[in-house]
Amino acid sequence: MSDDARAAITLTFLPSGKRTEVPCGTTLIDAALRLGLEIESLCGGAGLCGRCRVQLIAGSLPVTPADRENLTAAELAQGFRLACAAQPDADCTIEIPVPAAQGEIVSAGAGREVPLDPAMRRVPLRLHPPTLEQGPSDLEVLMTALPAGTGMPPLSLLQRLPRLLRDGGWRGDAILLEGRLIDFQIARQPLCGLAIDLGTTTVVAKLIDLESGQVLSTAAGLNRQRRYGEDVIARVGHANAHGPAELQGLIVSQLNEMVDELTAEAGITRDSIFTAVVAGNTVMEHLLLGLPPRHLAEMPYVPVIREFPPVAAREIGLRLHPEAQLTLMPVLGKFVGGDTAAVLLTLAGRLDETWLAVDIGTNGEILLCHRGRIWTTSAAAGPAFEGAHIGVGMRAAAGAIERVWWRGDHLEVRVIGGGKASGLCGSGLIDAIAALLEAGALDASGRLAAGHPLVELLPAAGTLPDQLAARLAPGVLLTQRDIRELQLANAAIAAAIELLLQAAGLRAADLEHLFLAGAFGQYLSPQAALRIGLLPPVAPEIIKFIGNAACRGAEMGVVNSGERRQIAALAGEVEYVEVAAGADFQECFAEKIRFGRG
Amino acid sequence: MSDDARAAITLTFLPSGKRTEVPCGTTLIDAALRLGLEIESLCGGAGLCGRCRVQLIAGSLPVTPADRENLTAAELAQGFRLACAAQPDADCTIEIPVPAAQGEIVSAGAGREVPLDPAMRRVPLRLHPPTLEQGPSDLEVLMTALPAGTGMPPLSLLQRLPRLLRDGGWRGDAILLEGRLIDFQIARQPLCGLAIDLGTTTVVAKLIDLESGQVLSTAAGLNRQRRYGEDVIARVGHANAHGPAELQGLIVSQLNEMVDELTAEAGITRDSIFTAVVAGNTVMEHLLLGLPPRHLAEMPYVPVIREFPPVAAREIGLRLHPEAQLTLMPVLGKFVGGDTAAVLLTLAGRLDETWLAVDIGTNGEILLCHRGRIWTTSAAAGPAFEGAHIGVGMRAAAGAIERVWWRGDHLEVRVIGGGKASGLCGSGLIDAIAALLEAGALDASGRLAAGHPLVELLPAAGTLPDQLAARLAPGVLLTQRDIRELQLANAAIAAAIELLLQAAGLRAADLEHLFLAGAFGQYLSPQAALRIGLLPPVAPEIIKFIGNAACRGAEMGVVNSGERRQIAALAGEVEYVEVAAGADFQECFAEKIRFGRG
Repeated sequence: MSDDARAAITLTFLPSGKRTEVPCGTTLIDAALRLGLEIESLCGGAGLCGRCRVQLIAGSLPVTPADRENLTAAELAQGFRLACAAQPDADCTIEIPVPAAQGEIVSAGAGREVPLDPAMRRVPLRLHPPTLEQGPSDLEVLMTALPAGTGMPPLSLLQRLPRLLRDGGWRGDAILLEGRLIDFQIARQPLCGLAIDLGTTTVVAKLIDLESGQVLSTAAGLNRQRRYGEDVIARVGHANAHGPAELQGLIVSQLNEMVDELTAEAGITRDSIFTAVVAGNTVMEHLLLGLPPRHLAEMPYVPVIREFPPVAAREIGLRLHPEAQLTLMPVLGKFVGGDTAAVLLTLAGRLDETWLAVDIGTNGEILLCHRGRIWTTSAAAGPAFEGAHIGVGMRAAAGAIERVWWRGDHLEVRVIGGGKASGLCGSGLIDAIAALLEAGALDASGRLAAGHPLVELLPAAGTLPDQLAARLAPGVLLTQRDIRELQLANAAIAAAIELLLQAAGLRAADLEHLFLAGAFGQYLSPQAALRIGLLPPVAPEIIKFIGNAACRGAEMGVVNSGERRQIAALAGEVEYVEVAAGADFQECFAEKIRFGRG
Repeated sequence: MSDDARAAITLTFLPSGKRTEVPCGTTLIDAALRLGLEIESLCGGAGLCGRCRVQLIAGSLPVTPADRENLTAAELAQGFRLACAAQPDADCTIEIPVPAAQGEIVSAGAGREVPLDPAMRRVPLRLHPPTLEQGPSDLEVLMTALPAGTGMPPLSLLQRLPRLLRDGGWRGDAILLEGRLIDFQIARQPLCGLAIDLGTTTVVAKLIDLESGQVLSTAAGLNRQRRYGEDVIARVGHANAHGPAELQGLIVSQLNEMVDELTAEAGITRDSIFTAVVAGNTVMEHLLLGLPPRHLAEMPYVPVIREFPPVAAREIGLRLHPEAQLTLMPVLGKFVGGDTAAVLLTLAGRLDETWLAVDIGTNGEILLCHRGRIWTTSAAAGPAFEGAHIGVGMRAAAGAIERVWWRGDHLEVRVIGGGKASGLCGSGLIDAIAALLEAGALDASGRLAAGHPLVELLPAAGTLPDQLAARLAPGVLLTQRDIRELQLANAAIAAAIELLLQAAGLRAADLEHLFLAGAFGQYLSPQAALRIGLLPPVAPEIIKFIGNAACRGAEMGVVNSGERRQIAALAGEVEYVEVAAGADFQECFAEKIRFGRG
């Protein structure tokens, strides 16, 4: 059907007030995307997850079968619709819920300090113009004033060089990147770098002045690739079906806009950014470079590359200085990607100690270090820890229960933002399980105790049969099915940690430190995580939060080029342990399925 | 005036039959250029040189003031017009004279033989696909099968690699360029290189199979930048006024079309061309890279660069293999460019001998070698040797007198193509002067002898006063003014050679060889050149023709990467001698203005 054959209608989106004219029959999610508006979606627009609900404010919007399946009659009456299925046939005004997680994105990191030693160098010069007798070229005049062995400049600089030298009166600053001449500034501009934490869900970027080490500005946003699914497997599926270019384009344009934001805030131009370091998981890094991630998701799970060569930022369409270099943190093995490499870099001062570092998410990445040897593995936990597949699950946003305590005769909860509870985020979920175990409302096998005051019977609804549920707060019911989901995720992580310790010949008691990385780790209650058996049995005091260590590792790579060399060297030494493939895993997983004290 | 305001007319150009619709008032030269048709022009379309004459075959074409100044009444009646000034106001059919030089372009070279040792290498591989236990990436599987130290591949190959490895069943040929992995072929394709002789007037390109050393095809054409003037100074002027991009675009698009031609003839694709070596003069090489040549033409004559770094062919828009590398022969000093460097390369086996190598053209380049030391200089001879500024001058094309002998009582001439003489090419000009000196029709001071049977008095014409002229053939009159032009050019070259010898502390008698390079040298009569004093007094038998040595040098660079390193090293050792600036030059020039036996 050609667009021309369809009548055009006008859509207005709140709260932004953005307006667009689209052919009748366009889905709301597509129309919003074209305007650059974010609508949450877990299922990639398949009408399954119900996350993309929007509210009709004015005009009309037919109810679809997907709406009937996911929304209550009351919600439909209030004008709620799923944006992925909704196809307006008349002008209307639509309210998109404000993306909830934004307020809670962790962009502050923790880790060792590194000295300022960037890949860039400024060399102020006063040159001697060529004379008739001496026959050097413009370039020779410049190169002879620079250290021997300085690399030849790019064509783009050569094209501008004669004018720069003469306009600047043969004075200016040569800019060297990794020992190569890449620019000549006749008006001094700052030398900056960019640290990018490229998450599946959130993207954080920091602009750093490389002559002071100061962070000039920080930007964060939800990864726009989420339009094609929340998790990496959905993204791989999209790349398999449509090629990686579309997903690459989405993230690159998002990064370009973040750079606009960062530079505007800092009052500099893009031309002042000479280097960028990216820490992302294996799939995110592959997609950023337009590399097909297909074989990562198929046996035997093969990345295209683990140690990325430096890439010209312009080669992927990232608009920084024309010669800016993009470095991606190396993949440590299969799904243990550059984000984990960046975490490792922040811990590189402790390689003679014995420690475990865990980043829990849809994919859990685990690092183990003992006497200079490093092991790693990953566990596919599924999205339960991020609140997905959990009826009342939600991201760590206003209204989410983040803490639960059993007070002997009742549950006490803490809600993000302090208002009424509307769901549970990942940390709250683990707290809730621990509290229910304490209360005796849940047994170690994961069964809710019928008849317990916290437990009630939910009547069958839709395709779901009758089931038990624990009431955490008014309207927030954690069902037996939800608990089973969490139980599987919990066992996957716990078994992977156990097997990694076994592979290294270590026991939990040998650990001197247990580092929790990532936004999830930041909010986790160590006691609850130990109580449900997510973490191995260690003394709670050795558990340390290192926050967004991936971002911090990227920052270290930006400000100190020796750190980039160090992580490249370390990556080659890390031993990847394939835990999930063996029979051991099945056995260990079956043990860990029981909630326990470790 | 907007194009829309003018009526459109249809122009048909013969012999190609190409047709275009243009706004009334468009000049013929512009219309032809848009169709990709060549019209000769020396003055850059200023209505001065009269070279762009075309003939009206059908329709009408108003006579312009430029036509009246440059063409006779008979020519006007026959429909001849200057294409640069002609602005047709009605449909017409125009005949463009077939470019004359095409038939005589020298694309065969001479020089030492070099072994086949290109920068490219094919490594046939049978790889072991990754297993679940071993966790390498696709790239590691490939890299571990290649020599240690092999450079990382470009992003474009990484993007294709997973599919190539699996489609090829983990077998194929890795292609290395300068030790870097740049391609993986699962269907074997040839490895080719391109040698380009980038002349101000003509461009010659050869496609070479780098596994056999065989020249697969050769293409030649007139440099399309000629539309903006015949000589380098006119091109610099255009670049100064409009930026170098337009001239760069013209030559790059011409090279791309030549590559089309070369690959079609050889039955290969562009993707098989991995390397290109260009030998051009300083201005041509600067323009090819889009470098502003302004300061080359202004005191103190400074090139942007002398030793060009390798450039990605795609960076200048040259469409070969996406990773193909373009190497430009180094500039030896100021106007002694990469074409002379290529000549030097062909003579690099004789560095322990004593020789002079001369390439005579609008700019004369001179190399002198003695016991391992190399000196060079250039002399601005003006276009007389190429037949310009000479009334009956023309390029070495059908109808040109190329040889003149004094047979005691009459002149004998040899005409290219054997037909009726219509003018004199450069070599014929020098022969003619020598013959007139022999005949006593001309004295050493350059004065024609009034009363000599070969000499007659031409009545004043246009702005020209009465003057003497020598009749070389029916209708071919060499005027006193023409002789003065040649005399200046002759003295410029002779003085530069003399001063270069002096700078090296050598005399003509010390020379073991005198090499004549370039198309002009190819046709020069050594005896005549010695007779008029163009060459220093040496025994005629030491004079050797080395033909299009610039092209040959480029070929050597293509087939053997060691040769590229050698010329880069040699270029750093060559001593540029600034002969034209000193008082010595004025004195020497004044001596050499006399035609003599040297």
